[in-house]
Amino acid sequence: MSNDAHLEEVKVDGGIAYDGGFLKIHKDHVRLPNGAVTSREYIRHPGAVVVLPVLDDGRILLERQFRYPNSQVFIEFPAGKIDEGEDPFDSAKRELEEETGYTATDWQFVATIHNAIAYSDEHLDLYLARGLTKGEAKLDEGEFLECFTATLDELLEWVRTGRITDVKTIIGTFWLDKLHRGDWKLG
Amino acid sequence: MSNDAHLEEVKVDGGIAYDGGFLKIHKDHVRLPNGAVTSREYIRHPGAVVVLPVLDDGRILLERQFRYPNSQVFIEFPAGKIDEGEDPFDSAKRELEEETGYTATDWQFVATIHNAIAYSDEHLDLYLARGLTKGEAKLDEGEFLECFTATLDELLEWVRTGRITDVKTIIGTFWLDKLHRGDWKLG
Repeated sequence: MSNDAHLEEVKVDGGIAYDGGFLKIHKDHVRLPNGAVTSREYIRHPGAVVVLPVLDDGRILLERQFRYPNSQVFIEFPAGKIDEGEDPFDSAKRELEEETGYTATDWQFVATIHNAIAYSDEHLDLYLARGLTKGEAKLDEGEFLECFTATLDELLEWVRTGRITDVKTIIGTFWLDKLHRGDWKLG
Repeated sequence: MSNDAHLEEVKVDGGIAYDGGFLKIHKDHVRLPNGAVTSREYIRHPGAVVVLPVLDDGRILLERQFRYPNSQVFIEFPAGKIDEGEDPFDSAKRELEEETGYTATDWQFVATIHNAIAYSDEHLDLYLARGLTKGEAKLDEGEFLECFTATLDELLEWVRTGRITDVKTIIGTFWLDKLHRGDWKLG
């Protein structure tokens, strides 16, 4: 993308500025397009997966989970970090089963999204999961959440009215809407 | 939300673990629903605004901006942090004019979204801006971006095919689609 040289920033030096176990902050010196040098702080994140689980009757499987930074319970699709060296598709299967107990026979990749481009390299891969069978959840220690189901119309209404504000869940809902309408198709 | 006590985490103690100037990391000890104590690390963020600028001819105003964490140019709606004590609506007007030079006569609140609920309290307020008039951009020092326009159909196609991956821009595009179809209305 050399035609973007008027926008690009180039690393001069840098490294880890904070490692708290959960969050790792990098701080680099970078050269701006005008030649000036400034610093850029950002989180290195392994990436995450998001599962859009649609039951045979069309209802959608969701979670309610307390998220400490906003001190609030959020409605979310099942999701989680990609383990080191793990294939994202395997992460999606693992997270769905761990968090909800469900397994799925029919998986399709939907999209990759970037959720905090100003200060994190995190990406999330969204997968559609169908052919669902219920089993036992195996939550991580210290993980507390509850599962429930809703219709697509309910989800859309909750996005419209602000009851759903989590970006991965909003985007998953809009994608399910596009697929359900037949406007968009996968693969 | 006492009916969510089985999900809630309560702060025991904590505070700032890292202050790099741009990013502030808090680390708290919290009591889990089962009584165990663990730590939670997260970013405190002042919040941000996102502007969906629709020109009189229906074309949509966008930016291309290099984002260092992913070392990539992203297609984005105009956006920026809320200054301390600033009304978010004023932030939206300020960011649109600073980044694009445009001013707007017709503003409407669209939605609030949360983009990184596992490790940041950041929220973004989306505003629709119409009645646009072109002026001179006044970029912050060290800020480099270029503006362009696209049709709603182009934006939707770029969301579908993965050319647009930034969450605020995906969600803004889906909202513009819902408004344009007449499925949803504002205020």
